[in-house]
Parts: sequence; structure tokens; C-alpha cells
Amino acid sequence: MVRFECDYAAGAHPKVLQALVDTNLEEHPGYGTDPHCDRARALLRDLCQAPDAHIHFLVGGTQANTTVISAALRPHQGVICAQTGHINVHESGAVEATGHKVLTIPSQDGKLTAHQIAQFCQGHYDDPTAEHTVQPGLIYLSHPTELGTVYSVAELEDIRRVADQYHLTLFVDGARLVYGLAASDVTLPDLARLCDVFYLGGTKAGTLFGEAVVITQDSLKQDFRYLIKRHGGLLAKGRLLGVQFEALLEDGLYLDIGRRAVVQAMRLRQGFLDKGWPLLANSPTNLQFPVLPDHAAAALSQRYSFSLQSKPDPTHTAVRFCVSWSTRDEDIDALLSTIRAL
Amino acid sequence: MVRFECDYAAGAHPKVLQALVDTNLEEHPGYGTDPHCDRARALLRDLCQAPDAHIHFLVGGTQANTTVISAALRPHQGVICAQTGHINVHESGAVEATGHKVLTIPSQDGKLTAHQIAQFCQGHYDDPTAEHTVQPGLIYLSHPTELGTVYSVAELEDIRRVADQYHLTLFVDGARLVYGLAASDVTLPDLARLCDVFYLGGTKAGTLFGEAVVITQDSLKQDFRYLIKRHGGLLAKGRLLGVQFEALLEDGLYLDIGRRAVVQAMRLRQGFLDKGWPLLANSPTNLQFPVLPDHAAAALSQRYSFSLQSKPDPTHTAVRFCVSWSTRDEDIDALLSTIRAL
Amino acid sequence: MVRFECDYAAGAHPKVLQALVDTNLEEHPGYGTDPHCDRARALLRDLCQAPDAHIHFLVGGTQANTTVISAALRPHQGVICAQTGHINVHESGAVEATGHKVLTIPSQDGKLTAHQIAQFCQGHYDDPTAEHTVQPGLIYLSHPTELGTVYSVAELEDIRRVADQYHLTLFVDGARLVYGLAASDVTLPDLARLCDVFYLGGTKAGTLFGEAVVITQDSLKQDFRYLIKRHGGLLAKGRLLGVQFEALLEDGLYLDIGRRAVVQAMRLRQGFLDKGWPLLANSPTNLQFPVLPDHAAAALSQRYSFSLQSKPDPTHTAVRFCVSWSTRDEDIDALLSTIRAL
Amino acid sequence: MVRFECDYAAGAHPKVLQALVDTNLEEHPGYGTDPHCDRARALLRDLCQAPDAHIHFLVGGTQANTTVISAALRPHQGVICAQTGHINVHESGAVEATGHKVLTIPSQDGKLTAHQIAQFCQGHYDDPTAEHTVQPGLIYLSHPTELGTVYSVAELEDIRRVADQYHLTLFVDGARLVYGLAASDVTLPDLARLCDVFYLGGTKAGTLFGEAVVITQDSLKQDFRYLIKRHGGLLAKGRLLGVQFEALLEDGLYLDIGRRAVVQAMRLRQGFLDKGWPLLANSPTNLQFPVLPDHAAAALSQRYSFSLQSKPDPTHTAVRFCVSWSTRDEDIDALLSTIRAL
Repeated sequence: MVRFECDYAAGAHPKVLQALVDTNLEEHPGYGTDPHCDRARALLRDLCQAPDAHIHFLVGGTQANTTVISAALRPHQGVICAQTGHINVHESGAVEATGHKVLTIPSQDGKLTAHQIAQFCQGHYDDPTAEHTVQPGLIYLSHPTELGTVYSVAELEDIRRVADQYHLTLFVDGARLVYGLAASDVTLPDLARLCDVFYLGGTKAGTLFGEAVVITQDSLKQDFRYLIKRHGGLLAKGRLLGVQFEALLEDGLYLDIGRRAVVQAMRLRQGFLDKGWPLLANSPTNLQFPVLPDHAAAALSQRYSFSLQSKPDPTHTAVRFCVSWSTRDEDIDALLSTIRAL
Repeated sequence: MVRFECDYAAGAHPKVLQALVDTNLEEHPGYGTDPHCDRARALLRDLCQAPDAHIHFLVGGTQANTTVISAALRPHQGVICAQTGHINVHESGAVEATGHKVLTIPSQDGKLTAHQIAQFCQGHYDDPTAEHTVQPGLIYLSHPTELGTVYSVAELEDIRRVADQYHLTLFVDGARLVYGLAASDVTLPDLARLCDVFYLGGTKAGTLFGEAVVITQDSLKQDFRYLIKRHGGLLAKGRLLGVQFEALLEDGLYLDIGRRAVVQAMRLRQGFLDKGWPLLANSPTNLQFPVLPDHAAAALSQRYSFSLQSKPDPTHTAVRFCVSWSTRDEDIDALLSTIRAL
Repeated sequence: MVRFECDYAAGAHPKVLQALVDTNLEEHPGYGTDPHCDRARALLRDLCQAPDAHIHFLVGGTQANTTVISAALRPHQGVICAQTGHINVHESGAVEATGHKVLTIPSQDGKLTAHQIAQFCQGHYDDPTAEHTVQPGLIYLSHPTELGTVYSVAELEDIRRVADQYHLTLFVDGARLVYGLAASDVTLPDLARLCDVFYLGGTKAGTLFGEAVVITQDSLKQDFRYLIKRHGGLLAKGRLLGVQFEALLEDGLYLDIGRRAVVQAMRLRQGFLDKGWPLLANSPTNLQFPVLPDHAAAALSQRYSFSLQSKPDPTHTAVRFCVSWSTRDEDIDALLSTIRAL
Repeated sequence: MVRFECDYAAGAHPKVLQALVDTNLEEHPGYGTDPHCDRARALLRDLCQAPDAHIHFLVGGTQANTTVISAALRPHQGVICAQTGHINVHESGAVEATGHKVLTIPSQDGKLTAHQIAQFCQGHYDDPTAEHTVQPGLIYLSHPTELGTVYSVAELEDIRRVADQYHLTLFVDGARLVYGLAASDVTLPDLARLCDVFYLGGTKAGTLFGEAVVITQDSLKQDFRYLIKRHGGLLAKGRLLGVQFEALLEDGLYLDIGRRAVVQAMRLRQGFLDKGWPLLANSPTNLQFPVLPDHAAAALSQRYSFSLQSKPDPTHTAVRFCVSWSTRDEDIDALLSTIRAL
């Protein structure tokens, strides 16, 4: 079985693992106060061109999302999110567990537009009984989205304007950001300039675990470590996060990993299109969503693992193929041959 | 600087690290559903002689504590805890963040007695306005405690009886359990028999991270993975936890680590006593709490790191020395020489 | 200005007010432990033919909804609700404030069908990653709904079967139940038989305030007063609730109030239809939703208050007219004349 | 049985009840947006000499406490409170239900001193692991306290200085404020000047229910109605609160009620002292806490209800006698005669 069902099936990129091995017997103070974390923070601040940003390393995405969201909102506020957004559909109510409603907006491609957000907020403030409803307080985007789609700088700039107009925190979930950086015009400095807070994911990009949260908004910076601890997110051996992000960030490894996977994904994409299979979403990143005849899906599943996305009609299935840093070119070759031969 | 300030200053025990390296390129499904987790669960169930126990691997202790406590309590219930308990003093209100009050009972040595707990509960149910107060719902112990002290089987049996009498869940925080197993008559089967839920800590016992939660009570078993996910505790690359606990559990490595550290700690303890320094708590485990003259504390701090515990009088300081799997015998030798020479 | 915008514009029905005046100088123990509460509970248990039901009086509907919902759910569970449901749209996130997600199902008429609920639950349990999503734990209905529509006994029986199949608590919000009793075949004994918990609203039915929560499910009964207190819902002078519900329940006053209002509402309904105005929802109860030409809405608003519901097209407006125990027949007459003359 | 066990045993002061009767058939918009609420707010702002204060009427004290506290705190902050404070001992964990820890300080007389608070905060910020603990964010006082004791203006000014130094919100629970105003040098303008937020209680001072929350701090004013609604505290027939507070505030009724009760309480106090019974607390307000021989307590309980406070030794009992607006002078006379005759 060759695994295409997710981008976290293997362990760490060899360079990341080597860094862990090399530093294993070093002794450091805990909870992210060690020199490796300091250096990883410095590297990322430089890459973001954001010398005043605060950077915190958390273990996982759900933890990062709930910690950031509950830090930014007052109790009566909710988070604007595409209906397909990860926090709405795949975190077991972790945001609601912090007391906040997820305010969903329908989306076909996983993205929200500035116009949709503005309309939603205007609707709220036009309502004479607004105080009986949840006030929008934060925009949650992911880049790439759950459907692999990406924002452009221009789109993010429009959304930033709406955020300013309605006093909303702008937060970008970057669990798969390395693939987004490789497939859009958005750069780390753009994110640091346009967002109040975002994160660069490690788990799906070659580390064992870890998400690097970058905070540029001053009020969010205050006391953030208390909030991480309160969410159970302050890793005792915090140096593990520092060591891994040092390895990921230095010499552009994070960019290499993203670019390589996108090249592989584009080969897959072309193979699906050549076969005449439509795509559920127009993803330029490491997730691809072909709509297959059921018999083709059944045949492929003999040798390849992938995940079911939806059932658009009785004889077709939309599925998700993921590539990652650990995907081998020869596995792409073999998969494409198999598809052509179907 | 030789570090005695905590038991999580280094990375992983070499055997644990090697297991991670050996399995790094394996591909597995995520979130703890892989064969390594399955095998680690089987090993631990065997060691506990608890074939029906459910076992879940979480990343850290605060996460384990809040997930278990909020899973066990109804909304109006609170958790009984020694005033010195970790959840009361060192988790930034993580239990309260789940909506539950920590009901503290004074304790000199970090332990609670069955009698204290019974009195507390009786006081609650005798109160004609009990429903205006928080109902005790769970007993939180740690073994060893924050002061390194341990329970005996007899003490745990007494507490179990009180738990039954007042319908309380009995939960033992085993973040440092390997040291407790080496220094008391309590075994894993005892804990599985007497507790509703407990955990065996990895972070302070040779893994990079990870706590193995053992659930024996049926109602707590149900849907526990939802609860972990809701707390942001379901690690994507869950296999990392399985691999590490396999290494820790097989061939009794966890026992060796505990025993070796306790031997080192007892040497330290004797050194303190020989010097005429009293001990703040009578700890048979890897944490030792000598009360030093201030000048001695100052002198030691030139070469050794340790943590301040309290200030019993103007010229003395109580401090905490920790040993762990990574403490070297020669560092103990040198420290003892330094102390004798003071 | 004659008010048709809500059913809580006036104070209390004269009989209810008189009861408060008559008992004002009596002295009673607090928090609902007085003889008036006891008698009101006995009356309601009799009317429900539910001798073992537990009955609690709460001040308002949001409080009743959040207290019941959070009492019934485990932390990882959510509440199934029509998208138009009060808890989803008009309670400022009070349910989410208790940590639970509202799981919405689209609805045109404010009702949910047994089939919709079954499909939703089946979709959850069929999902191989169900534990990454919120588990449905409770069905929230209102009878009548926000759109004035009602359930039949047969519909409730079907929903009960689905509740049993998927282990869901069935909860009916009866803030306007007196009007629902007057306009459907559902009786208090039906509700007591089919629901795990429901409430009979006083606020919109002639009391100054107060909702009578009827619990028939045993596990929900336990410790419910703790839960009320924890939500700030245990009224110090609880006797006020007992006195008012005594007045409402004895001699069938609650039925008279409901029936009279429904007769008035049906006269309004016919007036709207005679005028050729369609109805947004087919409501047999005290809320009526005509779709008016904008000029007619503007003309009516000179003398009558009503609330805006939606804007179906650029020249029409859907509005809501409410009648209640305090609506006078002559005001209905005058309103109908005005409409005919438009 | 003559009731001295609480100050909410009767209904409303006759003037308050009359106002409710007089306005019963008026029709008003809901949720506190009516002219009676507006006028009551204007009256209270004038009495406080605080023209910019925001005033909200809530139904009960627990609701007021949790709404204010959760509005003021960020998630990682807790509330400083005397160990005897109402929110710590008699609200079933309602503060913890909003996610915040109650940080208790021991107190003999129910009061906190500026020095105690400063020490507590200094201890927090001196701790190198402060972020692992709950940050103090708000001071909760009650005036009078649970033991009937009161603050002086000078004491409140000292506490205000500490609040400023450590960036704490200062909140005074005034559930029994009318009695505190009659027994200390603290006035409404003092409270408006020194606190960020406080409330004037109606429930224990002659209304059926209701607490008037006065907010002077700008950041707390924002969106406060959303927060009330989210806590289920926005009463549909909000005019009931306006009408009652109009009656309580105009012509100084609230002052008369407070003064009259304090005169009665001082007569009781003198009677206890004349009998040689010591007082558990030196209360100048409507709660009195004599320590009685057990036989005297038993004898009195034949004709009088009062509440048990504590058991200082095997043969004595400390009890609580409350007077209120509804206590009759002849009942005081009779009680004093009974005591003298014991």
C-alpha cells in the first residue's frame, strides 16, 4: 500500500531528525526558553521581515487554533469561518469548548471573499437586535484551504481592509503553509504585514510535530504564554520545537519541501485531467481532489490509500490525494502509469 | 552548569531515540491508530494486568489532567486536590478553563489522607445549602506528589473506599510514576485495580514527551478519543507516542530508569542529611528538598542549577534538586564533594 | 401605537398579578423551597400525568435552554437544532458559552423532521473520522417554533424513535407552549411521555417571568438544582415563580390564554389572506408572518408596531405580528379594518 | 415562626409592589429598552454623580457577579476574593463555569486589605514561573461582606491604589449595599469614583428581584448587553426592573430601608451583648452573628428561624440573624424579651 491519504504519514524529514539526534543530550531549561527556540524565533522573524513579531511554538494545529482564537476574542464574540473550515468540521468542537461560536459562511472552494465577510458583518450591525446574536470578532482563513486552494496577496489585502473596518482580528491557519508559499504570490512578509497572527505548520511539512505561531498585533502578544499553558500547550521539552524549526527554516528547507511537493502534485493533477477526470477544487497545492468513476476508485484502492471526500453522483466518487516531503517520485510515476492503464 | 532543576532538561533516553530513528520512514495512519500504538497499549495492559483497560497516549501532563478531569465530572462538580497539587498551582487555571473548581485541602507533605477526603465530602453533604456549593466529583492525587512523597497500597485502598462511599472518580497523576514505582509498594496492577484512571508519564522518564493514560472505569472509556481531540490532544503523528512507549515499556526500561534515579537521589539525600541540612519533605523519590543556609545555596548555584522552593526563615532557603534518567553518576559524586567541602 | 411586535410587552395577567399582591407579605424560605412552588409543581405534575417528573422554575428561556442543554450533554457532544432555532440565532452564543456546538439542520418552516435528524446522526456515525467532529447528543425542538409552526403527536413520536436509536436527549422549548397546546393535538401528557425534558413558558403566556422545566428522564433529574445555581438561575425569592405558576395552572388559565390568542391570531391570518398577502409560514399559533407590499408595511407602521422578518423581494417585506393574553379584541378589529382599507 | 434567617423572605416593599401594579398594563419594548429603565438609570447616575456611567439591571447576584467578572477578565486571569467571599463559597462554581479561577486570600472578618492584595500580586509577579499560574485580574469585594462588615472610604482608596498598580479591575458586590450605605462613610459617589464597576442590590433591599450594575470603566462598558444576554440575564420584561428601581431610588426609599434595618440590627446587637454573648464578627449592618450557648440556640429556634454559621466549641453555636425592610419592630421587641428571659 502506497500512502497518499495524508501528509503526516511518515516521521520527520531526515535533516530535522538529524538535528534532534545531534542535540539529544544537551540540557536546556524547559517550556521554550532555550537557545534553540530563541534561534528559531530569530530565523522566522527575519524571514517574515517582522523584527517585533512574537513567535511561539505549539505542538499541533487544533491547539494553535483554539489558543489564538480564545486569546483574541472577548466572550461574546465568534469567529468567521468558511463552512468547510477545519475549526468548523474537524476539531470536535474545540473552539466551542472555549466558549465561542463558529460563524460559518458558505463556500464552494474553501475560501472566503472580502465581500462575503463584509456582508456578514454588515448584516450583524444592521440588526436592531444584534446584541441577541454573536458578534463577529475574528476572521479565520486557512492558506491553503481544506480544498487546497490559495489566496492571492490582493485577496488578502481586501480582507485586511474588511477586518479593519469591522475591528476583526485576521488569523491565517498555515498548517500547510509551505505548500501555499510554493503555489501563490503570498510570502511570509505578506502574511506578517496583513495578518494579526498566523502560523507556519511543521507537522505536515517535515517536522515530527509543531506549529510556529507568529503574532504581530500588540494586544495579542501580551501574556500569550499564560494562554498556551492554560490550553495545555506549553511543551516541557520545548527545545524539541526549537531544534526542529531551526532545521526547517535554515537554508530554506521549508521552501524546498513545499516546492518539491507542489511539482509532484501538479504531475498528479495533469494525470487526472489527462484521464478526463474533473477536479472537485482547483487546487495548485499538495492536495488534489479528482472525481473518479467508482470502478476506478475501487481499482486504485487496491494499491494506494487516499481519502474519500464526497459522492457527487451514484457512479462517481470525489477523493483526496496528498503528497508531502516524504512522497517519492517513483511512487508518483507508478501511480500515473496505473491511472493511464485503467 | 550542571542541571538539577528539573527532570526534563535532556532529550530522550538513547533507546527511545533509537526507536524513533529506526521507525522514522515508516508510513502509518495518524492519530494513534497505528501498530506501534497498538503494541504499546498491549504491553501496558499486560504490565497492569488489566486486559480491559483503555489506553490513550497524550503529549503532556496538563493536557492529560484536563482531559481526564473534564471527562469524568458533570458540570457542577469539582476536583478534590491537595493545596500543593499541580493542577491547583502550576497549570495556569487549565482545570478551571474547563469549567470546574479545584477544591483544595491543606497538606504539609503533598498527600491527601482518606480521612481528610471523607471529612470534606461529609461537610459538603451535611450542608443544607449544598446545592449552592460545588459538589466533589473526583479525587486528584499524584504519585509521587509535588514534594516527592508517595502513597502506600494501604493508603490508596483507604482512599478507594472513600471514593466509593461518595461516588468519586479516583484519578492518579503519574507524571513521575516511574520514580514512585521504584520507591513505594505500589505497582501498576495496584493502580489499575484501585484507580478509575491514572497515567504513566514519559516526559520525565526518558521519552521526548508523552503520558500514557490508563482507564479502567467503563463510563470513562466511552468516546474518550472525542474528548482528547476536543482538547487539542490528538497528535497527528500519533505513532511517535506508540514508538516511544514501546521502547520505554519493553524489557523493563521504565523500571530501570526509575530505580537508577532513586538510587542517585538517595545518595543526594544522605549527603544533605550528613551535612546537617534538614529536608522540607521526606521524599523517597527523585526530587529532594534540602533546607540550606543561604550562603550554601549561593555557593552551590555557581556550578549547579536547582529551583527555589520556599524561604522558611531569613537565613535559609528550601530548594529542589531533581535527578532523572539523564543524570550522570559522576555529577552526583561531584555535587556531594562540593557539599561536603562547603 | 398599538403593539403587535412581541408577546411580552405588557406585565402579568390580572389573576397572576393579584396572586403576587395577595401573597406579598408572606414570608418563605428562598430558592424555590416554599409551599407555593411545591403546589405549583404538584399541579403541573398532575396536568402532565407524570407523578415522578421533577419540576424546576427558572426565570427565563435562555437560562432554561442553557441549563438543560449543558446538564444533558457530555463535553464532546452538541445539540441538533433547526438553523432558525432560538438557541442558534437569538441567544448570543449562550449554548456555546457552555462549551457545546449547535449542530444546525436547514429548515424552511422552523421544524425538524425525524428523517432529517436520523440522516444527520447516520452521517456522523458513518464518518470514519467521527471522533474529529462533534457528536450529536440532544435534539432541541421548539413547539411552537420561531415561525409559529407546530408539531403533531405523530411527528413527535417519530422523532422520539430517532432519539432512542441514536441515544439522544429530546428537549422541547415551550416558551410559547400555551399557544402550541391550543393549536395542535399535542398535550402536556404527550410532552411528558415523549420528551426527556421540556418547559412550559410563563413569560409569553401571562406571568411576569418564569419557565417551568419538566424533567422525566432520571439521569437528568439528579443534582439539577446545583446546575441551576451554577448558571445563576436560582431566584432568591423563588416563591414568586411558584405563586405565578399556581395562578397560571389552576382553573385552566394557561389553556384559556392560549386559546383566546389563537382565535385572535386566526382572525388576523384570515385578514391577511383576504387581502391577498401570502404567509411566510403556515402558522396556526399566535405569531403570524404576512408578506406585505412595502407601501402597506409603511402605512401600517404609522399606528402599529410589528417586527421585520425578511425582505423576500425589493417591493415586499415579510413581517411578524404577535398576539398575546394582553391583546384586546378591539385592537384586532381596528387592525383588520385598517388592512381592508389599505 | 418569625423569620430572621435571611433578608429575602418576604415579597416587595409596598411602594415597589404598588409601582408594579400601577404600570402592569403599560406596553413597552423588551429587554430593558423601555422608559422606566431609562428613568431608573438616570436616577442612579445622578445619585452616583456619575453622568457617564453605564447602568444595567440584572435579575440576581450570581448572574451579576459572573457577567461582570467574565466581562472584565482575559482568559488566563483570575479573581482575587476573600476565602469567605460569596463567589467562592455560595455560587456553585458559577465563576469557574466561565473559565476563571477564584484566587482566595484568608480573611477573618470577610474583608480584604490593600496590603494583602498587594502581597498576593507581588508574589505572582515575583514568581519566575508566573505564566504557569493564574494571573490576578480583578479584585472582588463585597460591601457589606458576608459577615456584615464594611469598608471605609480610606480602605477603598488604598485598595484602589493597589488595583491601579497591578492593573486590576475593582468590583464591589453590593447585594446588601443599602445596609452598607447606612453603616459606613461610603456613599454611592465614592463607589462610582473608586470602583470600575459595582452594583446596588434590590433583592435584599425591598424589590422582588434585581441588581443595578454601575459601570464606570470605559472598556467594560463596551458591548455589555451582549454579555448579559450570553449569560441568560437579559429579562424579557425588563421594564419590571426599571419600575422597581424607580420606586427604590426616588424619594430616598433605598436609604430609608437601609437605615431602618440598621437601627433594628443595632438593637439586636446590643441585646446579644447585654446577654453576654460574644459576636463572631463586628458587624454594623443588618446581619448579626452572636455566639450562643447551645441551649439558648435550641430555645430560640422554637419560635425564631435563623441560620447556623459555625460551631466554635462543643457547647456553643454561632448563628446569623438577618433583618430587612420587612422586619417589624414588634418582632425585634419580642425577640429581645425572649433573649433576656432565657
